[in-house]
Amino acid sequence: MSLSERVRVVVDAPAFQKAITAVILINAITLGCETFPGLSAQYGDVLRAVDQTALVVFVAELAARLFAYRAAFFRDPWNCFDTVIVGVALMATSGAFGVLRALRVLRALRLVSAVPSMRRVVSALLSALPGMASIAALLGLILYVAAVVATKLFSAVSPEYFGDLASSLFTLFQVMTGEAWSEVAREVMDEQPMAWIFFILYIAVTTYTVLNLVIAVAVSAMETQIADERQDSGHDDRPVLDVLLAEVKDLRAEVRRLHEPARAPE
Amino acid sequence: MSLSERVRVVVDAPAFQKAITAVILINAITLGCETFPGLSAQYGDVLRAVDQTALVVFVAELAARLFAYRAAFFRDPWNCFDTVIVGVALMATSGAFGVLRALRVLRALRLVSAVPSMRRVVSALLSALPGMASIAALLGLILYVAAVVATKLFSAVSPEYFGDLASSLFTLFQVMTGEAWSEVAREVMDEQPMAWIFFILYIAVTTYTVLNLVIAVAVSAMETQIADERQDSGHDDRPVLDVLLAEVKDLRAEVRRLHEPARAPE
Amino acid sequence: MSLSERVRVVVDAPAFQKAITAVILINAITLGCETFPGLSAQYGDVLRAVDQTALVVFVAELAARLFAYRAAFFRDPWNCFDTVIVGVALMATSGAFGVLRALRVLRALRLVSAVPSMRRVVSALLSALPGMASIAALLGLILYVAAVVATKLFSAVSPEYFGDLASSLFTLFQVMTGEAWSEVAREVMDEQPMAWIFFILYIAVTTYTVLNLVIAVAVSAMETQIADERQDSGHDDRPVLDVLLAEVKDLRAEVRRLHEPARAPE
Amino acid sequence: MSLSERVRVVVDAPAFQKAITAVILINAITLGCETFPGLSAQYGDVLRAVDQTALVVFVAELAARLFAYRAAFFRDPWNCFDTVIVGVALMATSGAFGVLRALRVLRALRLVSAVPSMRRVVSALLSALPGMASIAALLGLILYVAAVVATKLFSAVSPEYFGDLASSLFTLFQVMTGEAWSEVAREVMDEQPMAWIFFILYIAVTTYTVLNLVIAVAVSAMETQIADERQDSGHDDRPVLDVLLAEVKDLRAEVRRLHEPARAPE
Repeated sequence: MSLSERVRVVVDAPAFQKAITAVILINAITLGCETFPGLSAQYGDVLRAVDQTALVVFVAELAARLFAYRAAFFRDPWNCFDTVIVGVALMATSGAFGVLRALRVLRALRLVSAVPSMRRVVSALLSALPGMASIAALLGLILYVAAVVATKLFSAVSPEYFGDLASSLFTLFQVMTGEAWSEVAREVMDEQPMAWIFFILYIAVTTYTVLNLVIAVAVSAMETQIADERQDSGHDDRPVLDVLLAEVKDLRAEVRRLHEPARAPE
Repeated sequence: MSLSERVRVVVDAPAFQKAITAVILINAITLGCETFPGLSAQYGDVLRAVDQTALVVFVAELAARLFAYRAAFFRDPWNCFDTVIVGVALMATSGAFGVLRALRVLRALRLVSAVPSMRRVVSALLSALPGMASIAALLGLILYVAAVVATKLFSAVSPEYFGDLASSLFTLFQVMTGEAWSEVAREVMDEQPMAWIFFILYIAVTTYTVLNLVIAVAVSAMETQIADERQDSGHDDRPVLDVLLAEVKDLRAEVRRLHEPARAPE
Repeated sequence: MSLSERVRVVVDAPAFQKAITAVILINAITLGCETFPGLSAQYGDVLRAVDQTALVVFVAELAARLFAYRAAFFRDPWNCFDTVIVGVALMATSGAFGVLRALRVLRALRLVSAVPSMRRVVSALLSALPGMASIAALLGLILYVAAVVATKLFSAVSPEYFGDLASSLFTLFQVMTGEAWSEVAREVMDEQPMAWIFFILYIAVTTYTVLNLVIAVAVSAMETQIADERQDSGHDDRPVLDVLLAEVKDLRAEVRRLHEPARAPE
Repeated sequence: MSLSERVRVVVDAPAFQKAITAVILINAITLGCETFPGLSAQYGDVLRAVDQTALVVFVAELAARLFAYRAAFFRDPWNCFDTVIVGVALMATSGAFGVLRALRVLRALRLVSAVPSMRRVVSALLSALPGMASIAALLGLILYVAAVVATKLFSAVSPEYFGDLASSLFTLFQVMTGEAWSEVAREVMDEQPMAWIFFILYIAVTTYTVLNLVIAVAVSAMETQIADERQDSGHDDRPVLDVLLAEVKDLRAEVRRLHEPARAPE
C-alpha cells in the first residue's frame, strides 16, 4: 500500500471525520465568543490559540486530502468549497482589513461539507436553482426597468427612496418583499397622486412572478420526489405490463401452433 | 427567391437576432446611465446618440420583419408586443411629456421577445392568468364592497386612510397585502373599538381567497407539468393496456376457432 | 301550464337573469357614488331613486322565485343567501342605524349568486372549509392560551398591546400575521428581556400550524382536481384492467373445456 | 373482573371522557376570567374554587388511568403529555413565582389530548417535524454565522440591533420573517453604504431555504395523503396486475399440456 493510499484510509475514516467536525464546532463557538467584549478581553489569548490551532488543523487536513486524492481532489465540488473557505480564513488572519476578519466565521460553514445529511440538503437546494434561472432573469429585468422608471419619475419627490438608480433598486427590492411598501408609496403619492398606478402594477407583476418562481421550485421538488419513490418502491406498473404482454404473445404463438396439428387429422 | 423571402432569411438568422439583442442590452444600459446626473451632464450627447441609433435600428428591424412576413406579421403576438413597445418609444422621443419620457426604458422589455427562454417563461406566466379570472373577479368584488363599507363607517374617524372611495380602495389593498394593517386598524379602533370585527373579517376572507388563488395557479402548473412529462416519457400505461386487450381478444377468437375443428373428429 | 310554472319559465330565462345582474351592477355603482360627498349632494335624489327601484326589483324577483318554486326555493342555499342579503337591505333602508346603512352595499354580493362562474368559485372556496376545521380549532386554542399567558405576564409592561384579554387576542392575531411583531416584542423586551422566548416560540408554533393549514387546503384542492381529471378523461386504468381480467378468465375456461373433448378421442 | 379492569371501563367510557373535556373547557374559561381585574376582584373566590376543583379532578383522573393501565400508561405519549401539564399546574398553585402562575393556563392544552380529532391533527403536525430537521439545522447554522458576522461588522454602527450576539440573533430572526427589515437595513446603511450586500444576500439565502423547508413539508404531506388514498380506495393497480399475470401463466401451462394429448392421435 503506497503512502497516498495509507493517507486516504486515514482521511476517510469515520473517526477522522468526526474529529474534524468537532474542531469545526469548537472553532465556531470560540468565534462566537470573540463577539462578547468581556470574554474577548479576559480569555482573548485562549480564544486566539484555539482559532490558530483550528486553522492549522484545517490546512493540514486539506493538504492530506489533496495528497491522498491528487487530481481527483478538485473533482469533488465539496473539496473546492472547503479550499475556498480555508483560503478566506488564511487571508483573514493575515490582513487587518475589518470585513475580511469578520468573514473568518464562514469557517463554520465547513460543517455543511463535513456532515453528510447537510451535504445532501445543500445539494438538493442547489439542484433546484438552474430551473429558476429564466424566471429570476425576468424578475431582474422587471426590477431594472421599474427602477429606471421610478428614478426618472420620483427622484425629485422622494430622494431618500428614489434618489438614484441604486436607491431605487434597493427600494423596489424592498417593495417586492412587501416590506413597508405603503410607507414608500404614500410618501410619493403625497406629491404625485397618480403614483398608485406604478406601485399597484409593480406589486401585482412582481408578486405574480415570484409566486410562479415558488411554484416552479415546488413542482420540480414534487416531481423529483415522486420519481424517486416510484423507482424505490418499484411502483411503476410498466415492467409488469411488459412481462404480461410478452406472456400473452407467446401464448398466442403456442395456440397458433396448436391449430396446425389439431387440424391435421381432419 | 423574391426580395421578401431574402429579407426573411436575414431577419430570421441567429446572428441577426443576437445583434438586435445586443442593441437592446446596450440601449438598456445607456437608459440606466441617463438617471445619473453626473454621467448625463458629461456624456449626455453620447448617450442620446446611442439612444437615437438604437431606436432607428428597432424601427428598421420591425419594418424589415413587416416587409418579410406581411399579414402574417401581426398574427404573432410577440410582433404586436414589439410594435407597441417601439411605438411608445417613438412617441416618447418626440413629446416633452415627463411620464412618457420615463417609459422609454420599457424598450428594455424587448429583451423578453428577443430571448427565446424569456418568451417561454412569459408565455407560461400568461397562460396561467385565464384560470385565475373568476377568483380575481371575486377578490375585486370583495375589495369594492369592503371599500364602500369602510368609507361609510370610517371616513370621519380616519380621513387619511378612508377619506374617500379611492383612499379606501388603496388602504384595503394595502391591508390585503398585510402591510402595516395593524397601524391602520389601531388608528380606527381608537375611535371605534368594534372596528376589529371589520378588519379581522376582511383579513380572514381576503387571505383565504388569495390563498385559493395561489393554490389554483399551483395546481394548474403541476397538472401541466405532469401531463407534459407523461406524454414525453411515454409513461402512460393506457396504450400498452389497449394492445394487451386486443391481443387477448384475438387469442380468444383463435381458441374459439380451435373448438370447432377439435370437436369435428368426435 | 299552471301560473307557477309560467313564472318559473320567466325567472329561469337567461334574459331575466342578465337583467337582474345589470340591476345589481348599476346598484353597486350608485352605492359607490353615494360615498362621494359632491356627487351625493348634487345627484342625491337620483341615486336614492335608483337605490329604491333596485330594492323593489330584488324583492319582486325573490317573491317571483319563491312563488315559482315554493318549498323547493329554500333547498337551494343560494336562494337563502339572496333572501338574507335582501332582508339586510330592507332593514337598512328603514333604520337610521349607521352600521346597518353601511351594510346596504352588501347587496353587491348578490353578483356572486347571479353569475354562475362566481357561484362555482365560491362553492369551491366553501367546500375546502370543513377540512380546515380541526387545525383552525387548534389555532384558536393556541391563540387563547397564548393570550391568557401574555395578559398575565405583560399587561403591566405594555398596557397598549396586552392590557386585557381582548387586546392580547388582537395583538397576538397581529403577531400571527407577522405584522409589526418586532415592534411589539421590542417594547415588551425593554422591560422583560426574556420575553423573546415567548415571542419566538409563539411565532414558530403558529407559523408552523398556519403552514399546515395552507398545505391541507392545497392538498385537498389538488386531490379534487386529480380525481376530477381522472374521471373526465377516463384516465383510470382500472376498468380496462377489469375487462382484461374477465377476458383472460373466460379464455381459461374455454381452454379447459378444450381439454375434455380433445382428450376424448385418445 | 379485577378492580383495575373495572376502573379501566370507567375511564375509557365516552361519558367520562366528555365530562373531563367539559371540566377542561370550564377551567379554561375561568382562567381567562381571572385576567379581568373586575371579575377577579368580585368573583375571585368562585374562580379559585373552580380552579382548585378542576385540578383535583385532573389529578384524580390521571391517578385512575395510571391505576387502570399501570406500566402501559406511560407507553402512550398523550398520557405523558397530560402528566407533564398537570405536573406544571400543581407546581404553579404552590409557587408564588409569577411566570409559573401564568403557565397554569397551559392546562387548557389538555383539550388537545382529550378530543380525538385534535389528537390526530397534532400527531400529523408532529410527524412532519423529523423530515424538517436537516433544513432547520442548516437554517440555524446560517443564522448563527450571519449573526457573528453582523455583530462584528455592525455592532458599533447600530448597537440597538446588533450590539451583541443575542441582539444580532434576534434581529436576524426578525429580518428572516421579513418584519421591518428595511428599517434595520437603512439604519445600518446610513453609516455603511455597502451593508446592502449583507442584507440582500442574507434575505435571498434564508428566504430560499425557508421556501424549501415549506416545500419539503408540503411534499411529504401530499405523499402521505396520496399513499393513504391509494390504500383506502384500493386504487393501486398492482394487485390486479399480479392476479392477471398469474392467470395468464396458468393459462399458458394449460395450453402447453394441451399440445401433448392433441399431438398423440397424430
